[in-house]
Amino acid sequence: MPVITLLTDYGIKDSYVAEVKGAILKINPEATIVDISHDVGNFDIESGAFHLARAAPYFPPGTVHVGVVDPGVGGTRKPIIVKTRGAWFVGPDNGLMAPAAERLEVEAIWEITNSEMLPPRVSDVFDGRDVFGPIGAHLSVGVPPDKLGTEISDMIRLPAYTPMIDGETVHAQVIHVDGFGNLVTNVTYEAMEKIGASGDVRFKVVVRGHEFDIPYARRFSAVPEGEPLLLVAGGGYLEISVNQGNAAEHMGLGKGDKVTLQLK
Amino acid sequence: MPVITLLTDYGIKDSYVAEVKGAILKINPEATIVDISHDVGNFDIESGAFHLARAAPYFPPGTVHVGVVDPGVGGTRKPIIVKTRGAWFVGPDNGLMAPAAERLEVEAIWEITNSEMLPPRVSDVFDGRDVFGPIGAHLSVGVPPDKLGTEISDMIRLPAYTPMIDGETVHAQVIHVDGFGNLVTNVTYEAMEKIGASGDVRFKVVVRGHEFDIPYARRFSAVPEGEPLLLVAGGGYLEISVNQGNAAEHMGLGKGDKVTLQLK
Amino acid sequence: MPVITLLTDYGIKDSYVAEVKGAILKINPEATIVDISHDVGNFDIESGAFHLARAAPYFPPGTVHVGVVDPGVGGTRKPIIVKTRGAWFVGPDNGLMAPAAERLEVEAIWEITNSEMLPPRVSDVFDGRDVFGPIGAHLSVGVPPDKLGTEISDMIRLPAYTPMIDGETVHAQVIHVDGFGNLVTNVTYEAMEKIGASGDVRFKVVVRGHEFDIPYARRFSAVPEGEPLLLVAGGGYLEISVNQGNAAEHMGLGKGDKVTLQLK
Repeated sequence: MPVITLLTDYGIKDSYVAEVKGAILKINPEATIVDISHDVGNFDIESGAFHLARAAPYFPPGTVHVGVVDPGVGGTRKPIIVKTRGAWFVGPDNGLMAPAAERLEVEAIWEITNSEMLPPRVSDVFDGRDVFGPIGAHLSVGVPPDKLGTEISDMIRLPAYTPMIDGETVHAQVIHVDGFGNLVTNVTYEAMEKIGASGDVRFKVVVRGHEFDIPYARRFSAVPEGEPLLLVAGGGYLEISVNQGNAAEHMGLGKGDKVTLQLK
Repeated sequence: MPVITLLTDYGIKDSYVAEVKGAILKINPEATIVDISHDVGNFDIESGAFHLARAAPYFPPGTVHVGVVDPGVGGTRKPIIVKTRGAWFVGPDNGLMAPAAERLEVEAIWEITNSEMLPPRVSDVFDGRDVFGPIGAHLSVGVPPDKLGTEISDMIRLPAYTPMIDGETVHAQVIHVDGFGNLVTNVTYEAMEKIGASGDVRFKVVVRGHEFDIPYARRFSAVPEGEPLLLVAGGGYLEISVNQGNAAEHMGLGKGDKVTLQLK
Repeated sequence: MPVITLLTDYGIKDSYVAEVKGAILKINPEATIVDISHDVGNFDIESGAFHLARAAPYFPPGTVHVGVVDPGVGGTRKPIIVKTRGAWFVGPDNGLMAPAAERLEVEAIWEITNSEMLPPRVSDVFDGRDVFGPIGAHLSVGVPPDKLGTEISDMIRLPAYTPMIDGETVHAQVIHVDGFGNLVTNVTYEAMEKIGASGDVRFKVVVRGHEFDIPYARRFSAVPEGEPLLLVAGGGYLEISVNQGNAAEHMGLGKGDKVTLQLK
């Protein structure tokens, strides 16, 4: 009962996601398929990469993650397989899977080259269904990657997933705004430990020239309703949140905005 | 092959729901996970309670329902398990699960206290993934609730799920407007029988001082296209509908509005 | 581990889809249930038919497709079962399943008449949960259709899924606009072969009196970014697309619009 996850920019209004699932179930009828998100913004590789990196660590060992945000479909970008400690990733070589795979430690990478393992096709526009889904299904039933492609030395990585740390100051960036308006930064839990942030510390937070004094906490209710706080939420990334409120509106910030955090 | 359902206010754009599923599959790889809704309105406990109460009776015996609409996460509200005839409920003690559990008859309630049965965590903001999902997975593989928590005597119930009945008059309330514009009231099928409504009866319906004369029917087509009718739809609750139309727009009504029904 | 797919106009905000799944799992706890779409537009039979026809060929042999876009629920339209080569279809006899079933070759049709195989019900408004889901579940565990209904000679077909072909000119129609703005026409891959379109041909495309000169290609990147192309995409239907753009906006076209294609 291997798990296969799907992350795409297909949306769920059309039948695309279902067609990928059908193609998977033709090869592995026992697969448990879990949707990560299909609503990451058309062609928005960074947003897809974020969701995959957040979610992947929470899946059982052996899970196959199929990611398809693929503006270069049909062009020269490589279709790849990435093996990490405890998980597989299948998708286009455009950075989409890099942050997730790096969190789980990359062990080897293959370019998918063996079209004999793929279903027949009438066009080259739907690699999710015609390439990545079937390859993920083959991996989930134990087909070795060497039968599906050729090992290669590296893949495309995403810039800007690494904050700049200068002593107790972190130059960070908002990489995602979630449905509650929480501002997710590129600062990981590990980075917070590195600068000595633990327990009841506070930060001077500078955004667009404005300064805020915000506590670092473990729960929303550590501050009064409507007040901002910093916390390492679900996926291990530092977030700026507002207790029972919308931090994006409160701070006037969005994806890509720079944030400087200074331990007080 | 036990069934676990999920009802949250997480939305499906972010990876939150997937992370809950990953956490469940780590504990019970054989679980069949069904989404009830993830779009009940941020922090809208009443709406979540409604969907759970509607859907729960239609699942197989032994189903575990995990509900997370949880504005008090990280605060003092209790995480609880509710055992009913034929189903389990896991979620916050804030009324979310009460109407559903009452429909299926509550047998016992536990406060979740045994953190040894839970995965490690870096913050207290995502109980869906870090507490409720895993506890639901443990119940689905047969872990007894006494190993997960301590039995308690009661839980928080939701007000206003009970209409006031006065002879042949019912003082009701709209508790939900569905995607077709149907106005779902808090009047159950059982209440309709109690006031003697059966067969081809009609009601005087009073809303905001306006009177309507509306038939009680078993199917939309009992009235001409565009005309209103009363019927006990899917979940056992009385609805005001319009044949192939939108009752919310037709009547100018929404959630929370009062409606008086009088048997003619 | 039989596959059951669901296509409805229920949306995913309400618990309707979940109730259908619960009803299926009560009868067949081993079913793998896949959502095709639940967002095809209220009562929009044509759109539902399109998604079902696109997706059905990609599912494993033996799949049961349950389709519910059903403005006539509770009226005189028949509930039917359609057997095709390799798949079953269950839903209302209103054309919804016809294009999909025709693609897979219709073998036999039954009207569902045996209410003893259905769960008890308090109204006639939710055939998805009370009729079609359970019948699909029965078929998936091998109950023969003769135990569920009576064989009939035909079903309702959908007009306008057939383009008019006149030599090298095709009078086509936009039957769907997908989430990327791609314009899907009623012209199948087989029709394109019939008029001799293969390799590097170009078409004169006439829409609303305007003429465009557009190449027929296998991949988006065959044209520069922002330029239109014709291709047979996923489901075997000819599409007008724009490389990394939105064809619906580019051409000023939508569903139902006529398009004339002339091989150059």
